[in-house]
Amino acid sequence: MSKQAQTAITPIRTEDYPEWYQQVVKAADLAENSPVRGCMVIKPWGYAIWENIQRELDRRFKETGHKNAYFPLFIPMSFLQKEADHVEGFAKECAVVTHSRLEADAEGKLHPAGPLDEPLIVRPTSETIIGELFSKWVQSYRDLPLLINQWANVVRWEMRTRLFLRTTEFLWQEGHTVHATAEEALEETRMILDIYADFAESYMAMPVITGEKTEAERFPGADVTYAIEAMMQDRKALQAGTSHFLGQNFAKSSQIKYLSSEGQEEYAWTTSWGVSTRLVGGLIMTHSDDDGLVLPPRIAPAHVVIIPVTPKEESRAAVLDYCSELKQELEAQPFLDGHVKVEFDDRDMRGGEKAWSWIKKGIPVRVEVGPRDMESGSVFVGRRDRAPKDKQGIQRAEFVGGIASLLEEMQDNLLAKAKAYRKAHTREITSEAEFIEFFTPQNKGNPEIHGGFATMGFCCDAALEERIAKEHKVTVRCIPNATQHEEVPCVFTGKPGKRVLFAKSY
Amino acid sequence: MSKQAQTAITPIRTEDYPEWYQQVVKAADLAENSPVRGCMVIKPWGYAIWENIQRELDRRFKETGHKNAYFPLFIPMSFLQKEADHVEGFAKECAVVTHSRLEADAEGKLHPAGPLDEPLIVRPTSETIIGELFSKWVQSYRDLPLLINQWANVVRWEMRTRLFLRTTEFLWQEGHTVHATAEEALEETRMILDIYADFAESYMAMPVITGEKTEAERFPGADVTYAIEAMMQDRKALQAGTSHFLGQNFAKSSQIKYLSSEGQEEYAWTTSWGVSTRLVGGLIMTHSDDDGLVLPPRIAPAHVVIIPVTPKEESRAAVLDYCSELKQELEAQPFLDGHVKVEFDDRDMRGGEKAWSWIKKGIPVRVEVGPRDMESGSVFVGRRDRAPKDKQGIQRAEFVGGIASLLEEMQDNLLAKAKAYRKAHTREITSEAEFIEFFTPQNKGNPEIHGGFATMGFCCDAALEERIAKEHKVTVRCIPNATQHEEVPCVFTGKPGKRVLFAKSY
Repeated sequence: MSKQAQTAITPIRTEDYPEWYQQVVKAADLAENSPVRGCMVIKPWGYAIWENIQRELDRRFKETGHKNAYFPLFIPMSFLQKEADHVEGFAKECAVVTHSRLEADAEGKLHPAGPLDEPLIVRPTSETIIGELFSKWVQSYRDLPLLINQWANVVRWEMRTRLFLRTTEFLWQEGHTVHATAEEALEETRMILDIYADFAESYMAMPVITGEKTEAERFPGADVTYAIEAMMQDRKALQAGTSHFLGQNFAKSSQIKYLSSEGQEEYAWTTSWGVSTRLVGGLIMTHSDDDGLVLPPRIAPAHVVIIPVTPKEESRAAVLDYCSELKQELEAQPFLDGHVKVEFDDRDMRGGEKAWSWIKKGIPVRVEVGPRDMESGSVFVGRRDRAPKDKQGIQRAEFVGGIASLLEEMQDNLLAKAKAYRKAHTREITSEAEFIEFFTPQNKGNPEIHGGFATMGFCCDAALEERIAKEHKVTVRCIPNATQHEEVPCVFTGKPGKRVLFAKSY
Repeated sequence: MSKQAQTAITPIRTEDYPEWYQQVVKAADLAENSPVRGCMVIKPWGYAIWENIQRELDRRFKETGHKNAYFPLFIPMSFLQKEADHVEGFAKECAVVTHSRLEADAEGKLHPAGPLDEPLIVRPTSETIIGELFSKWVQSYRDLPLLINQWANVVRWEMRTRLFLRTTEFLWQEGHTVHATAEEALEETRMILDIYADFAESYMAMPVITGEKTEAERFPGADVTYAIEAMMQDRKALQAGTSHFLGQNFAKSSQIKYLSSEGQEEYAWTTSWGVSTRLVGGLIMTHSDDDGLVLPPRIAPAHVVIIPVTPKEESRAAVLDYCSELKQELEAQPFLDGHVKVEFDDRDMRGGEKAWSWIKKGIPVRVEVGPRDMESGSVFVGRRDRAPKDKQGIQRAEFVGGIASLLEEMQDNLLAKAKAYRKAHTREITSEAEFIEFFTPQNKGNPEIHGGFATMGFCCDAALEERIAKEHKVTVRCIPNATQHEEVPCVFTGKPGKRVLFAKSY
């Protein structure tokens, strides 16, 4: 096997997708498992992606009138019990604090001491504690709408964890809003869903399908759950964000009431919505290839890496100067709401190894500069959306002047590619036999690869949905907003149904 | 008592300082106690101050080469035990997770279930868990320095809590760095201290004294602890940030070793440093007055509030238009690294009540606009650093053009005022009798108000320091960097000593 044909990541996607994912995360130095079961460490390159996600979403939340606040990490055990479905959904997987200190025994061994009167739960989500506070904040219709968001960590005691996709502790934002009417609350729920969808597409270059969940996948305590669903390269769906219309369920369990303009006491209507560090997992699985991470420029921690090539000691200083100037010129170029971000990699390391380290990290553009490039006033450019060896010499001024449009072009290409992939692996299904065939793995070597997204009529019978989930490990991802009013016969029963999206999922 | 002479806050500072503080927090709607003992809720206006603190500090950390990462919330109990002083310092006040789910009994009552093999501690600080990870990340001198920061929540089970100043859960940043030499690590520790001090003065208008802690106040496990200390208006000191040189203590307990360029295996040298939401408490107590919060413009969530005054229905629309234009004009004015931030308060509320709500929230500039102001092309302006009734008419264009310099002037005034207050209440102490007199409350009605900061010679004997702390509730806040090389006789013993800062403290 020639060196050129080797890939940076082993195994490749078609060989073992889950293992490929772990290896991409490792090769890009995004995150790693910690000594605490199920809890990950987010490393600088991975955390910088999360910061970019945060910055843009936070901007959009504020632009639409939401304000950030911070609520306690702990929730008294009794609070969880106030909403019946909610406790059912979360009691089985929560970290319980029972003591307030440690005491050493005679041998110096530590033991929990200072038992609490009431155990505390580390928040798995904050509806109950926030509801308690909102019941005090909201008194009159003048206090509504109340539009709050929180950036926080949450804990759900997951049995099988996977970096970014499912971890015991994860970072997220949770929006919580209170409204005077059901219509307003529903409008909020849908507006947030649109923000999530637009952000996913325009920043992460991750196309998503927006739609409503069936009862089986609804948030515990919600009347309606909307979600964005994205197709990964193993053709499974990733639920990448949810927005819940909570009706009056939490308003009633937390007593969130307001005096209407007519002087009537009314229960309010609430919503909650969130995206998490899972988005980073979705980003990885949407774009990365067998050489590692691929980052859409709008979400990349840095856009360009400059790699000086200094084979001769006598020209070394000049090359480094040339690179420094280049860096300054690039950093003066506007991109998005800021400027082009540049890494200058002068580590003492072989050039090939260095370039590969950046390919694996997914940086959009690599620039190599050696003595000859310097003499000809040019740079040697590699793009992450082309093959590693496909590099081009280009005049420095031309490169600098065109960098922003190059990055936007790459952004567009990645979105188009992801859309094409999803289109190629979405099929209209018209019979049960076709359904079964579609979801049966086609690649003997890799049991993960199957048909993809199935769009089809379904009667939405809960028992039938459960049976399909058990037998085929396929679930209704959503009733897409785009087709929610279509009436089509159910593929399984022939009864009147809705056009839904079935898929295997994370 | 005439209405003009009343204050918005009761009691006033000289009557009951601690209660005044709580009332300022409440009147400004910054935070409140939650149903979880010792945990606060940070409300939008308070959280926006914290976001401004975060943004500027984060910029400075990144500018000096630090990268953000995220580490687990939980720490295995055994980790805490690795460093002897460290466990001693934190075991008495930590939340202990012992179970991983809840189970309902026959009556539906919940109980902790799924006991963990090893209890987990909710991080009170992260040296031990980060040390464990760093021991894998650091292999060779090429990996050094390793400069990491984390923005996170931490939990210390405090018995007596006070909003922002001391809460069971709080938000902070914790920097953790690894270096090849003691000199480099010490340099880092001091550089961070300088960042903290400069930030406190130039953004929060809170003058601080930088210096080294004596052994009694050192971080558990540190060789040297530096701190910034600020004087509050009750003349007590607030420790507002700390930077620790950890020597090789944690490197040895966590096995952080590196291969030197000479091929020798060496223990590394580490530092840690942090500031927290306590800074918001310091901000409140430095500037606020008997009418509520006073915010330095550089840290204020908004700089100007526009209050339309619409006594007549027929001119209402025109006034609102005039105000909207004014808002746009103001928001186009550059301030700091962004623009002037403006609130437009068109709530249905009496004008006086509305203006007072903003005075209590500490917004730097209030602009009232009524029909007559509109006709004369002017605005009616109140400054938070002047008396509430002291308002001035000014031509609109002149006001808009001068807003940025007005805000900078107010920023400078607040810093100068705080410096003058500290200077007025700092005294050179030369005898034990003078020391006792200085720290004895002078205002019979308010036991909190005493002399202030004492600068004096001290032999730094630990037992003597402990006795003074017990008898007078006065401690060495620091050995100021500015006077660390001064040799002065100890006021208590006459022995050779250092010039230290004694004060009562939070």
